[in-house]
Formats: sequence, C-alpha cells, structure tokens
Amino acid sequence: MPSYKLYYFDGRGFGEASRQLFALADVPFEDVRLTREKFMELKPTFPYGQVPVLEVDGVQIPQSVAIARFLAKKFGFAGKTEVEQAIVDGICDQWKDFYVEIKPYFYGKLGYCPPGWEDVEKAKTEVLIPARDKFFGFLKNLLNKNKSGFLVEGGVTYADLFITDNMTSLVGLVPEYFEGYPEIEAYYKHVQEFPKLKAWLAKRPNTPS
Amino acid sequence: MPSYKLYYFDGRGFGEASRQLFALADVPFEDVRLTREKFMELKPTFPYGQVPVLEVDGVQIPQSVAIARFLAKKFGFAGKTEVEQAIVDGICDQWKDFYVEIKPYFYGKLGYCPPGWEDVEKAKTEVLIPARDKFFGFLKNLLNKNKSGFLVEGGVTYADLFITDNMTSLVGLVPEYFEGYPEIEAYYKHVQEFPKLKAWLAKRPNTPS
Repeated sequence: MPSYKLYYFDGRGFGEASRQLFALADVPFEDVRLTREKFMELKPTFPYGQVPVLEVDGVQIPQSVAIARFLAKKFGFAGKTEVEQAIVDGICDQWKDFYVEIKPYFYGKLGYCPPGWEDVEKAKTEVLIPARDKFFGFLKNLLNKNKSGFLVEGGVTYADLFITDNMTSLVGLVPEYFEGYPEIEAYYKHVQEFPKLKAWLAKRPNTPS
Repeated sequence: MPSYKLYYFDGRGFGEASRQLFALADVPFEDVRLTREKFMELKPTFPYGQVPVLEVDGVQIPQSVAIARFLAKKFGFAGKTEVEQAIVDGICDQWKDFYVEIKPYFYGKLGYCPPGWEDVEKAKTEVLIPARDKFFGFLKNLLNKNKSGFLVEGGVTYADLFITDNMTSLVGLVPEYFEGYPEIEAYYKHVQEFPKLKAWLAKRPNTPS
C-alpha cells in the first residue's frame, strides 16, 4: 500500500474531506497538522505555496478537490459509473462556486473581512442567505432524483463530504442555517450517520472550522 | 458511440475546452450555441440553470471542468497515470482560482464591472498583473519539470486547453500579457501547434472571448 501524508492546518477547512475518505476506507495516513509558523517554513516546498497537499510515496498532489477525487477514485467514493463520476465532479464544482459566492460573509465571520463587507450582518442577509437558498434548491433536486439519501444514486461520495463538512462550519456560525429546509437537514444528518464517518466524527480533533 | 450535444453561448469562455477535446479526438458532437433569449428559455431545464451543459445520450452533465474531465478521460487527454490525473485536476483548479482572482479586471473589461472596481486600469495593475506573475510562476515550475512541452509529462491535457484558451482572451485584452515571460508564450504557441488543435483553431467560429 502506498504511504500517504496529508499536510493541512489544524482545522477542517479544505483538508477534512480527504481525512474523512481515509476514515471511510480504513486506510492509514499521516495527518500532519501545521502551525502557522511551520506552514510558513514549508510554504516554498509546496507546489502552489498552499495546503492541503497530499504526499503519495513522496510525490506531492496539491489542491483540495483534486486530492479528494484521487483518494475517492482509489477507495470507491467517486461515483459508480463514468457519467455519475462527472455528475459528482460537477456537484463539487457547484459547491466551490457557492463557497466563492459566500466569501464576503464566511471570511468576514472568520476574521478575514473582504473590503466593502465590514457589516457582517448585511453580508449574511444579502450574500449568504440568497446563496444558500439557491444552493439548497440544487441539492433538493439532486436528492429527489434518487433513493440513496446521498446526492447520487451510487451512495456516498467525496462531494457529500465537502458539502456536509462545510455545513458543519456554517451551522456553527448561523444556528438557523437549516430553517425552512428540513430535507437538507435530514440529508446532513444522514451523511453523518454513515457508520465509518460517524466513528471518525466522534474521534477527530475538535476544531471550529 | 454515444450521442453528444454541448450547450453553451456563442463564445469560447467555459465551453471551448470541451469543443477542443472533441476536435482532438475526432469525435462528432452537436455544438449548440445559444442566443441570450434561447438560453433564458432553456435555463430552467439545466441542472444548475447555467451552461455549459453536455448531454450524453440525453443525460445532462453540468459544470465546465467536470464536462471537460469526463471527455478527456474518455479520449485520453486527462493524464497518463492516476497520480498524473490528480496533478492535472489540481492544475485546472489552480487555474480556476486564478480566474476567480482576476474577475475584478476580466469581468470589468467584458462589461460586467464588479462593485468597487470601476477603474479598470487600477484593476489591471493591482489585480491582473500580480495574479499573472504568481500563476505564470507555477506554470514555469510545471514546464521545467518535464520535457513534453505541456504541463505534465504525458502530453497535452484538458488543463492545457482551459489555460491556453483563457490566455487567448487575456492577450486580446492586454497585448503585453506575455511580456517578460518568453517561456510561457512559447508554451502557449506550442499547445496551439498541436496538429488537430491547430486545425480546429483555423476553422472554429471567431469570437472575442
């Protein structure tokens, strides 16, 4: 079996979905959680000066979604057919578009307020809530199309992991995040009940985001 | 062979890389170029209300990079090994991050100026040029690592197509875009000289972006 080393900060963020994939597959990996100081020291050695970076037998793979897709394909959580894999990839890209859209709110709440969005409550009303409504609409359509309880028929995928982990961060900031969307809250809980994921969630380091 | 139908606007944008993949593979497809009016009519029928959308035997795949990756995997332009495929995916995601970063300039030039960036020359100096310098640095590192003349050892991939087509749009707006980067300009031309791509570039509809 290859040797895996995942570099990220001591948070969930863009590294957690890959950690969850290792947990789902019962595959051991080195979970390297960098301090800011250690990150600055290693930054020039990473392909794009960023984390997460996955080292596979010494070869570095950068970019969070590319890492997770690589692991998901190996471990069987990338979709069951070629078309389903493309649909899962598209779901994840749609989630990343949502993530970019909510930055004025999300980054403001995390203490990195973008210029022009100093009023975080305004960002919540004008950015987060409309983006959530649109994105949850897409998720509802996907969930209605299949009976798996996940976003595609073939079962849990890396897209479910990115999306639900991000929901954990958002519901931590906005307790009413799921209000008016019981089917999305049920989906969120359903993913977290997936046995091997549930075990990982119970034992992982506890971080706010 | 499956029947392929690609919906996009009458422009290159996020649809062109997939058209180029069909050309590289000599695979016929229906190149549906929507007017704004026709797009508004079809919008509710698309999974995320957006184009590009690829229909494969009637099944819709949304999201530009997911579509291109699906075709690239089928046609042999996604990377030659599992690790190389992940690195190609990561290059493309890094390019999308660059694309998001330069929006204040790029969208302003295309007539969709984001709030706070009405001064397009300021956006050029403060956003586009630093983002280009950073991104071109990454591309140089990738090109130096292999002898293929493409971003990975295994030859041309969908990442080369997205990146060089976007360069065509940017150099159309900023004639000095490659100044100080002869190796990147050489790479840009090298991709465009790839025989089947060259033939497509000569015959495709001519649009500014």
